[in-house]
Amino acid sequence: MPICRFTDADGNSQFAIYDGSRICPIALLTKTAPTQAELLAGGATWLAELPTPSDSQWQPAPDRLLPPIDAPEKIICIGLNYRDHAIETGSEIPSEPIVFSKFNTALVGHGEEIRLPRVSEQVDYEAELVVVIGKTAKHVSTDEAMNYVYGYTCGHDVSARDWQKGRPGGQWLLAKSFDTFAPVGPCIATSQELPDASDVRVKLHLNDEVVQNSTTAQLIFNIPELISHLSKIMTLKPGDLIFTGTPPGVGAAKTPPVFLKPNDVCKVEIDGIGTLVNPCVAE
Amino acid sequence: MPICRFTDADGNSQFAIYDGSRICPIALLTKTAPTQAELLAGGATWLAELPTPSDSQWQPAPDRLLPPIDAPEKIICIGLNYRDHAIETGSEIPSEPIVFSKFNTALVGHGEEIRLPRVSEQVDYEAELVVVIGKTAKHVSTDEAMNYVYGYTCGHDVSARDWQKGRPGGQWLLAKSFDTFAPVGPCIATSQELPDASDVRVKLHLNDEVVQNSTTAQLIFNIPELISHLSKIMTLKPGDLIFTGTPPGVGAAKTPPVFLKPNDVCKVEIDGIGTLVNPCVAE
Repeated sequence: MPICRFTDADGNSQFAIYDGSRICPIALLTKTAPTQAELLAGGATWLAELPTPSDSQWQPAPDRLLPPIDAPEKIICIGLNYRDHAIETGSEIPSEPIVFSKFNTALVGHGEEIRLPRVSEQVDYEAELVVVIGKTAKHVSTDEAMNYVYGYTCGHDVSARDWQKGRPGGQWLLAKSFDTFAPVGPCIATSQELPDASDVRVKLHLNDEVVQNSTTAQLIFNIPELISHLSKIMTLKPGDLIFTGTPPGVGAAKTPPVFLKPNDVCKVEIDGIGTLVNPCVAE
Repeated sequence: MPICRFTDADGNSQFAIYDGSRICPIALLTKTAPTQAELLAGGATWLAELPTPSDSQWQPAPDRLLPPIDAPEKIICIGLNYRDHAIETGSEIPSEPIVFSKFNTALVGHGEEIRLPRVSEQVDYEAELVVVIGKTAKHVSTDEAMNYVYGYTCGHDVSARDWQKGRPGGQWLLAKSFDTFAPVGPCIATSQELPDASDVRVKLHLNDEVVQNSTTAQLIFNIPELISHLSKIMTLKPGDLIFTGTPPGVGAAKTPPVFLKPNDVCKVEIDGIGTLVNPCVAE
């Protein structure tokens, strides 16, 4: 079963098993609730060996979930990594991964609001498959890379286009790091739940319309290539998140452009993981 | 007194007062050693009210110190923020701050090695004044901004020029985030120790030569302007680090260019803070 993180009645964060509509706190299935580090160290196997929840142990999933990983050391993002999306933005097909980042203050969970900043008029959506790293990795080959994956979650790389382009220096960080610009969730499908993420469908629904719809088979740099490349540069740590890029269909590429407005609802749906829902509000 | 962080005989991290050659663990001066969050929340005043160490409480400073802040939520860096440095790189004077980031896996402390990566031939030095944020800040004005500063440390924005320029997408993150590319320390001078950082001298010594030598009076965007600008976009948190930019004299701008090689020693010296020393080794 996929896992999620939620705030319990005492205001504490807990991990739970998640079936899409119900949760069962892992603390009910084990003598001591695992910390995040223990959960990641246990890998998909530890989770798979938990006892099956009884009917009475399930409870309705809360409307809001926490980001499934707390305080990742890194949020790494890959730009222009779907061939069709690179084309729609008028960019060259990159010859190596384009890498930028988001800050943790941008993280929000399923059901939480995306706050449209006072200082942007062009907030755009980007659905992404997100890799959750499970083990410390440095200088790993593409052949070894998948051993370092704990699982996958849905991510939304919310982007202020008026901060991404036409600004001095051309760095994307600020455009991508406004508070609430990194929704992730609702859950992590472990590498045992989703053993092959090389061709899973990624969709973004803006209100009732499907505006992005592709599969990870379209990635220019696939997941093992990304992990191997990044690990030449930096030590990947358990809990690190890698946003793998977005499919075609972003609002800035439409004629006329479409940007997010208050009361819009974004849903990132990825087969084998779940659906991450976030409404938009004005800051 | 400035504070530093060191590894004690039991292998634990502790905060200490630091006089440049000696340390006195704060745990010797208080009933319970403060956590980092407590230290930051206490502000400069709490630290200033500690009793003066007795002669027997001082001990020689170890050769290696830890980065004075553990696991900052953000390492924010400002590019081309000294007018002369912008000119020496052939760049326009930016009309607003250029912002990029480093990952925590790049952090090392005073005395630790800068590892020159296998995959770069052009590793350059950049001395920087680093601001340590003390309180949560969002949408703060330039007038209020200095209330959110805990103190200052020396930083070294080590940069792989062959990863910074001429690569697809033009993002600087990878060039700046190789492991060990963010030395900081040796200590934090609090805002009480260094009440005015608007004109302090920043030098980089490469072996026995002073290669960068300027003052923060040359900043295009000063510290209150940086904090106010960033806080429009993201919530600044206690412990966040802001690298404020580097003076002229970087190796890439020399004729012929000068890049770091094994056995080079870099010293970042900032008046009112101290000297951060890091030798270079091959990865």
